Parts: sequence; structure tokens; C-alpha cells
Amino acid sequence: MTPTIFFLFGFLLCTINSHVVARDFCIADLNSRDTPAGYPCKSPTNITVDDFVFSNFKLGKPNQFNSSVATAYVGNFPALNGLGFSIARGELEEGVTIPLHLHPDTSEVVIAGSGNYTTGFISSDNVVYMKTLAEGDIFVIPKGLLHFGFNSGKGKVSALFVLSHENPSIQIVDLALFGNKLDSSIIQKTTFLDDAQIKKLKALFKGSG
Amino acid sequence: MTPTIFFLFGFLLCTINSHVVARDFCIADLNSRDTPAGYPCKSPTNITVDDFVFSNFKLGKPNQFNSSVATAYVGNFPALNGLGFSIARGELEEGVTIPLHLHPDTSEVVIAGSGNYTTGFISSDNVVYMKTLAEGDIFVIPKGLLHFGFNSGKGKVSALFVLSHENPSIQIVDLALFGNKLDSSIIQKTTFLDDAQIKKLKALFKGSG
Amino acid sequence: MTPTIFFLFGFLLCTINSHVVARDFCIADLNSRDTPAGYPCKSPTNITVDDFVFSNFKLGKPNQFNSSVATAYVGNFPALNGLGFSIARGELEEGVTIPLHLHPDTSEVVIAGSGNYTTGFISSDNVVYMKTLAEGDIFVIPKGLLHFGFNSGKGKVSALFVLSHENPSIQIVDLALFGNKLDSSIIQKTTFLDDAQIKKLKALFKGSG
Amino acid sequence: MTPTIFFLFGFLLCTINSHVVARDFCIADLNSRDTPAGYPCKSPTNITVDDFVFSNFKLGKPNQFNSSVATAYVGNFPALNGLGFSIARGELEEGVTIPLHLHPDTSEVVIAGSGNYTTGFISSDNVVYMKTLAEGDIFVIPKGLLHFGFNSGKGKVSALFVLSHENPSIQIVDLALFGNKLDSSIIQKTTFLDDAQIKKLKALFKGSG
Amino acid sequence: MTPTIFFLFGFLLCTINSHVVARDFCIADLNSRDTPAGYPCKSPTNITVDDFVFSNFKLGKPNQFNSSVATAYVGNFPALNGLGFSIARGELEEGVTIPLHLHPDTSEVVIAGSGNYTTGFISSDNVVYMKTLAEGDIFVIPKGLLHFGFNSGKGKVSALFVLSHENPSIQIVDLALFGNKLDSSIIQKTTFLDDAQIKKLKALFKGSG
Amino acid sequence: MTPTIFFLFGFLLCTINSHVVARDFCIADLNSRDTPAGYPCKSPTNITVDDFVFSNFKLGKPNQFNSSVATAYVGNFPALNGLGFSIARGELEEGVTIPLHLHPDTSEVVIAGSGNYTTGFISSDNVVYMKTLAEGDIFVIPKGLLHFGFNSGKGKVSALFVLSHENPSIQIVDLALFGNKLDSSIIQKTTFLDDAQIKKLKALFKGSG
Repeated sequence: MTPTIFFLFGFLLCTINSHVVARDFCIADLNSRDTPAGYPCKSPTNITVDDFVFSNFKLGKPNQFNSSVATAYVGNFPALNGLGFSIARGELEEGVTIPLHLHPDTSEVVIAGSGNYTTGFISSDNVVYMKTLAEGDIFVIPKGLLHFGFNSGKGKVSALFVLSHENPSIQIVDLALFGNKLDSSIIQKTTFLDDAQIKKLKALFKGSG
Repeated sequence: MTPTIFFLFGFLLCTINSHVVARDFCIADLNSRDTPAGYPCKSPTNITVDDFVFSNFKLGKPNQFNSSVATAYVGNFPALNGLGFSIARGELEEGVTIPLHLHPDTSEVVIAGSGNYTTGFISSDNVVYMKTLAEGDIFVIPKGLLHFGFNSGKGKVSALFVLSHENPSIQIVDLALFGNKLDSSIIQKTTFLDDAQIKKLKALFKGSG
Repeated sequence: MTPTIFFLFGFLLCTINSHVVARDFCIADLNSRDTPAGYPCKSPTNITVDDFVFSNFKLGKPNQFNSSVATAYVGNFPALNGLGFSIARGELEEGVTIPLHLHPDTSEVVIAGSGNYTTGFISSDNVVYMKTLAEGDIFVIPKGLLHFGFNSGKGKVSALFVLSHENPSIQIVDLALFGNKLDSSIIQKTTFLDDAQIKKLKALFKGSG
Repeated sequence: MTPTIFFLFGFLLCTINSHVVARDFCIADLNSRDTPAGYPCKSPTNITVDDFVFSNFKLGKPNQFNSSVATAYVGNFPALNGLGFSIARGELEEGVTIPLHLHPDTSEVVIAGSGNYTTGFISSDNVVYMKTLAEGDIFVIPKGLLHFGFNSGKGKVSALFVLSHENPSIQIVDLALFGNKLDSSIIQKTTFLDDAQIKKLKALFKGSG
Repeated sequence: MTPTIFFLFGFLLCTINSHVVARDFCIADLNSRDTPAGYPCKSPTNITVDDFVFSNFKLGKPNQFNSSVATAYVGNFPALNGLGFSIARGELEEGVTIPLHLHPDTSEVVIAGSGNYTTGFISSDNVVYMKTLAEGDIFVIPKGLLHFGFNSGKGKVSALFVLSHENPSIQIVDLALFGNKLDSSIIQKTTFLDDAQIKKLKALFKGSG
Repeated sequence: MTPTIFFLFGFLLCTINSHVVARDFCIADLNSRDTPAGYPCKSPTNITVDDFVFSNFKLGKPNQFNSSVATAYVGNFPALNGLGFSIARGELEEGVTIPLHLHPDTSEVVIAGSGNYTTGFISSDNVVYMKTLAEGDIFVIPKGLLHFGFNSGKGKVSALFVLSHENPSIQIVDLALFGNKLDSSIIQKTTFLDDAQIKKLKALFKGSG
């Protein structure tokens, strides 16, 4: 038995003596520049179990608007680097709506918690796929499509979201149109909205132009 | 010299005798089901040079609305299977606008032809990136973001588009909202548009609800 | 304004007339053969919103052993096809342990629910990364490494798992060694376990040899 | 309505407060080292619309040899970073030929402009796929195969090329063989060319050996 | 301890009861059509250990030309499906040359056996990288570049090759040019070879035109 | 003919004048941080043929335990960067065993040399796939599964291994369990091993706890 054991140690030794260690994981070094495939890896020295733990994924008490949200993505949880997904959770008080938006290059999977969460997406052939989810239901929103959600019942709604991107972004249609300096006449001809409507929403969303 | 040549033929023979031929290309067999990585390959027998040629990428004469468009994607040009991009071209007469839209999971590269084509996209932090392109300019619209374009000059505009998807789709915001049965009250609360505005556009885009 | 609208419809028409529709999603056709990139897509006709909803992701009442588990992966939720991840959830009663196992080609992200769940993995340089998670903590188990978990507190533990594979598998070390006909002498020399220990565990796990 | 809007801003704030911003694009930082997946991303601060515009994709006046060429690839248009394709265009005067060459790891799609452009590739089973393209025709040259082109008509030929690599290279057979110091005797036995022929072409292409 | 074990079996049962089994491997079903990502998987029923074994990777006795070659790629060894590489081995008698060729979309790694094998590739900037390998040396030929090899010593040469494609192809420059019906005048203008040289080689390689 | 040649040089010139050269290869710069897609590329200046050659892939004389092993992976052979595989070779004297282990995220292909090498893997449904390989046999061990090997005949065994990871790691079950400070009580409940057995192996493998 002894020869084999020493073979083992010899094999490991052979591997370890190199100045590059084998890599089981690639914790993001957020101080380095991102690449199309993710962040460079943090140096393996000084990595501890806490690099794999994220402890801020907690909903605070409801704010003054009775909503709360928490996200875990590579920017605040570097262990997600290279995994290709991230996680968010939220609670919506009664009557709250998540407005029309999309996530570029990202599919979304909703895991419904308590309450009546109604969510829908629109496909590129303009069909509406909408459902009121029961607790525990999972719903898939295909990559990059416009979608929305709202609390359609009594009491609050909670949900967890898995996003197929480790650094996802959100594009909210109202903010994209009315929350910047995009010229009203351009909005008008590219959306067919009336000028008065545009002006009203620009006022609401702090846009100009 | 002879031994080497025969080595060559021997090597080839060895390869060819198998019942699977080496694969230089994978022309889509559109009669088979698509997969997440593209269509199954058409049988290599009977493939001719014409499988690699697409002859319908021509703009017809301007239609009654003075616009014309042509697309080459895997569905009408099976040689694009697995390549990860497709091509479109279009002409817009004076004054014509391409309304606000997005391409899920697809980046777009515009190669401006003649005329003054103004195009813009909005990033997820709500910044507008807009430019009037000169002939020959290339413009990149990042994956999945809302964008638009319009003929901002005299005379017609022509452009060629490369899309980073062999089977791209287009989601036009107006049609997604007003060209189906999506309930007006849901549109209202997810977009903050007034009910009258919604009704007006539903009438225009043949939607109901 | 009218010309643009008709341009829109013309553009769509042009796309739709092809016998291949643009593809926003690829619901798995489980009756077809899997490929290295996932299942072929279900025919787009007859797809409804229910193809995107999974309603069986619910923990039943605790079984006689006070445990329950639910999984959503491509095999029972075809909308996950091509997404590259799947989801599981479980509850462990007080004192229950998840034995040493690994998921080939799959990273695991644990989202801790109520209770005290202690989990750990061992890296290939034999370091143990172990943590007792608080409710809401997220923990990353790098791809393919040996890991385990157990309820280390009072009352039951609940957790949700995201797995970076749409069709993940689980290899439990005890079952791999003792739950089949692998010859005891081979186990002995490849694990250094004593023969009596092997025989005892083969009896427990219904193996022979 | 107000709560929802504030929810929105709260959600965005939550995202923005992190020291890593969500990423809609990854403009190449050409001063950093390339990686197998592309260049690191340029810092998001100071990015303007001009980072997305390439204005040098213009054919100059024909040179003394009546040819002109323009390329847009990641090295001169950093917005192509991570997109996986690049673009070139060219004009060939009457009688001009593009010699036998290949693009390693790159498929080529030709979009024929005016004139009679004849192009062909040879598959690995030695079949010639050759076609004289009409204006507007698209032609696919599968990845990495030997191919060529020439102006086969009257007047000049123009074409646009999409290459499935953001940083494509070109290997011209004559230059590979005769434009360096590769020993004539090695060329002779690996190509079966006569020594006199080799010497003649080495003189033409400035090679030695 | 018992509850845990039953938890185990319960967990497995839960997984197995689905009509899709978790997938550890995807043996190619060569009777189905290839896809851009590989062959569909052979049905898991009836898979035995022999599906993972390839027993024909043996060099026969040297043929009349003193050469022998063996290849293992997905077409004759379906277990390589989806792995992204294949393997070949060969022996060259004294004086034998492997002519100028390339592998589209494939890097090659040579592991030199006995004898003096000289091999070289030419980069796209026309630099020759050539080396005579000692036994045990490994040499990397970057993807898709022209390369060659020859026995430069006494006695025979043996080598093993790993190719970064599970279904690699080989394009031999001489056969591409002279082993088919490609018109001599086209060869002449795309390669600058003299007509007499072309005719001579067409005769040698059984081409016409 | 002259115009074409100058066209060539003009084309190349156009490419070379940019401050980014086209890239045929990406030799790892091991002094930079690894990324999820591999190491940044070494600067193209000063690259010579020796960057593509690895001369340390040789088995030394058998050590005192009659075993020898050699590995070529990106850490000691930077030319493998981005290729997605690495190579190892080994010799086992009579009676030597390679203990139960796995390679995370890595498939293994064994090419048997002389001797009788018996190897086996266990699938996630606990089936043992085991085979004694004849010289020249190839055997595929699917990604991430537990496997082992031993010299089952007379005399020594040699084998070559291709691993589908350019920087593979090895997790040996005994070392993972008994070669560190993992608490014995945790080992006991996650493996069902007896405490005495655990203590015995911890002594053997220098673990504690």
C-alpha cells in the first residue's frame, strides 16, 4: 500500500511545484478590468470560506414605499464570476407594480413566494404570455423580451429571481424614454405617443428635451 | 516522392472509409427541429455551390410607402447555420422612421449607405447614444437595448445591418403594447401612459383590450 | 405617420412569410434526442403561457423521514432548455445530513432559508471550506467538487439551490462505492478502506461484490 | 402611482451604489492584453457615442494599382470587442485577382456589390465550389478553407465582407511559401513544386532560402 | 442514520421517476443528423462499458510505402461526441514527408515519439516556426495555419496527435489545387504558378482542367 | 500580374499599420491574472518557435516507488492557453494503483500503452464501467465522475492521458477526507464510515481532527 500513497503525494507534488496552481474556482478581482468572459481571478492566496459566502442577500424592513429588494451579482458577490447567473429577491406591498422593462442578454426565472404575483412577457410576434403565479410556481421569461409584474392580490408578494447573467442590467422603458434628454420630437415619431403625453411623463421621470 | 503521395491517399482513404465524413460546414436542414445551437446539418450528399449562395438579398423597387427591406438569415439562407450572425439591408425614403424596438440576444452593426441616417440606442443607465451617420460609417448597437432610426436628411437613406444572431427577432415597442390584447389597465400601470393615449394607439395598431 | 406604420407591418410580413419563424425561446421537445447543447425545440405552434410555468416546485408534507425535496430541471420543466441552470429546494428536519456527494460539470449555489444549515466543500488541494449559513446567506460550491451539508441547529432547515446545469446529476460517494457490484478488493485498494468496513457499508447500501 | 416610481428609483439606486456597474457593452481597452475571449473592457467613464462609431470604413480613391480596401475590426474599432465578427470592403479594378488564401478560425460571408465577382473555395474533400456573384448575392465561405476571388467582368467589382472573427487574419499561400526564409528543399518536398518554380516565386515575393 | 439514507434514496427516486434521466455523457448517435454542437445522444439504455472503449487505434504493420496511420474521432469513436477533441497517431518511415496542409477550425498538438520528426507552421504574418522534435517533445500548431512535417533522421518516426475538433478535416494544398477540376488558368492567376508546373502536378494528382 | 501582387502588399500593409496585430495564437502570460476564459496573451514580440515546444514531457527513471508521471498543462506549457485540453503521461510499476479520484469540470481520455491497465468510472446512477485496456485502446471517462485505475498485469503499465481542461485539477477522495482537518464526526455522518476507520486513515494521510 505504501508505494501507492507515495505515488499520490508524488503526483500532487509534481502538480504543486509549478508556479501556476490548478484552478477550482475564479473569484472575481473587482479591481481588475472586466473582460467579455468575466473578471480576472483574485489571487488564490488568502482566499477563505468567506469568499464563497454572501451575507447581504436580505430584505430590509419595508421602506416608506413598502418595497424592498436585494441583489447578488458579481459586483457585490465576486464568487459568481464566470458562473453565468445571478440572483435577486424582492417584496412588493399590495398594489405595487414593476413597470415594463427588459434585461439585455439575460433570461429571467421567477420563483414565486407568498402572495399573488402576476407577471407577463411579450414575444417578438406580439403575443402576451401572462400568468398569476401561485406560491412555489416557477416562471421563465425568455432572454431580452419586454416584461412586467404586479401584486394582483391582497397583502404583499415575495419572489426570488434567477437571472442568466452574472452582471445583469435592467432597462425600464419609461426611464429610457422619459428619464433623460431624448428630444420629444424623436420620442414622438419613434413611439407615436402624443406630445402632451410625452411632456407629462418627462415631468414625472425628471427628463428634459 | 511516390511514397509520400501514396501516404496522402492512404491517409485520406482511412478518413473517408468511415461512415461519417469530416465536416467543413453544416448547412441547416430546415425540415428538422432547431436546437439551442442551431439546426441539424443537411445531408452532405447533393450539396452544391448553390447551397452557399443567396440570391434574394435585393431590394425591390420602393413599395407604395417608399420603403424596402431584405433579410438573409438562417430561415431563408441555410448556409448561415451555426455562424452566429445574419444580414439585412433597407432603404428609407425621405422622412421615414424605424420605430423604437430591440432585438433580443442580438447586437446590431449598422453600415450606413447613402443619405443621412440618424440612429440611437439607450443604455440601461438611461443615457442616449445617438448619431447621424455619414456614408460608410459603422455604428454598433449593443445587445438587446432599445434603439431607433430615421432618415434625417433629403432623399432616401440606405443601410446594411449585421446582426449577431443567425435567426434574429425584432420586438417593436408599439406593437408589443398596442398590437395585441394586453389589457389597457395593465398597460397603464406598467407604462404610466394615460388611458386615452393607450386607446388611441390600440386603435392605430389594431390591438384590443 | 402612416408610411412608417406600414413599413413596420411590411417588415414584419417579410419576416413572417418565411417558413422559419424567428425564435425567442426553445422549449425542449423531450421526445427528441438530447444533443450536447440541449434538446431540440418544441414546435412553436400550440405553445401557451403554461409552457413557461412550472407548478410542481412545492415541498410536500414531510415524509416519514421528515425530509422533502423538489427539483425543476429540463426533464420536468422543458422551458429551462438551453438556459444552463436548474433549481431545487429542500427541507431537512433536525439532525438530517446530506452525505458527501458531487455534481459533475455543475456549480451549486445555496440560498439558505430558515434554520442552521452547515455546508462545506473540499478543494482539490484538500482545503475544507465550511460554513454555517444564516437565513438569506448565499454560498457557492465550485464546479464538481466534493461537498456535504447537514442541519446543525434546532428545528428544520430549508434551502433553495441553483445548479449551473439544466440537467444536473448527483454522485453520492457512498452509493458509488457501496451501492453496486464494484468488487470489494478494488474498493479496498483504491480507497484504503478496510475490508470489514466495506462489507458493512455494502450491506447498508444494498451493494454486493 | 408614486410608490411604484420610487420603487423604480430605489431599485436603480440599489444597483448603482455598488462599485461595479452593470455592463451593457465592453469596448476594448487596446492598451491591455488580449485574452482568449477578447480585450478587457475600457473604463465606462468617459465613454461617448463616438466609441460606437467607426468613420474610417471608406474606400479611398483607387490607388495606382486600381484597388482599395478598408477594414473594421477590433484593432481599429474597439466597439467590436466580444461581438465575434468584423467587416471589410474592397474594390477590384478590371482584371484584378485576390490570390489563394485562408482565414484561420474564421468564416467569411461575401456580399457582392457591382460588377462580376467570381469567388470559390475548396472543401477538404477537394471539391471546388465556385460562383460568379451577381450584385446583391451573398456567398458563404466555410471556416478556414482555401479560397480565392477575381474580377471576371468588365469594369470594377465591389464587395463587402463579414468575417466571423473580431480580429481576423489572412494567410496567403504564396506569401506563406515564398515570402520568407523557408528552405527551398522543404518547400519542394512538402508541395511537389519544382525547384525552378520555387526560386522564381521566391524572387517575386522577396523570399530567400 | 437511517433517515438520512432514506433521504438519499428518496432524492434519487425523485430524480429517476422523471422520464428524462440526468446525463453524465452523450455518446453520439451516428444515425442521427449532426448539429453545430455535435450529434444527438445515443439512447442511454443498452449503453455498456464498450461504448467508452475504442480498440482500433492501432497502427498496422507498415504498408508497402512504409507508413501507417490511425485515427479516433467521433465518426468511429462516438464517445468523443461533445468533447471537442480527437486523436490520431502515425508512423513515417525514413524519408517520408507529410505535405503542406491545414485543419480548418482545429489546433493540433503533436506528441513526438521515437525518431527525428521535423514539423513547422507558418503564421499569417509569414513567419516560419519550425522545429525538429526530440522524443517526448510536445508541439502546438495554432488553429487553421498551414503546416507540414517530415522524417528528418534515420529510421522511422512515430507521433501522436491531439486535434481540437472531434471531427477534424484535413486540407492538403496540393490536392486542393491539383486533385480536382479547378481550371488551370484560375490556379495560375491565384497562385502565380507557371502553367507547365500546374499541368505537371495535375497529372501527378489526377486532376484535370 | 503586378497589380495583384501590390494589392496583396497593400492589403497586408493596411492590416499591419494598426497598433493591434491579427492574432493567430495566444500564448499565456503567466504573470498576468487568469480569467474565466484563460490567461491574457503574451506580447507577440519576442515569441519564437520555442514558445510552441514543450520539452519536459518525459518520464524520468522510475523513482523509489517505481512510478513516474509527467504533465503538460497551461501552467508549464503556456502554448496550451485557450486550447481547452492538456496532456499527462505516467507509468505504474506492477501492483500500483491510482486511487479513487475525480477531475472537476474535466473529461479524461486514456490512451493505453504497454501492460495491463484496468480503469473504471462510476456513473451518477451508480453503475460501474470498468475495463482492462489493451495496448493502444482508448477509454473515455466522462466529465467529473469518480474513477480509478490499477496495474492489473505483470510488468509495468504506461498510459497517456488527454484532459479536457488546460489547467486540470485532481481531487483524490482519501486526501479530501483524511488529509486535512475535517472533523471526524462530520466525516462519519456524511460518509457512514466508522470512527475507527476514519482515525486510521487520518493517521495514514497526515490529517487531524
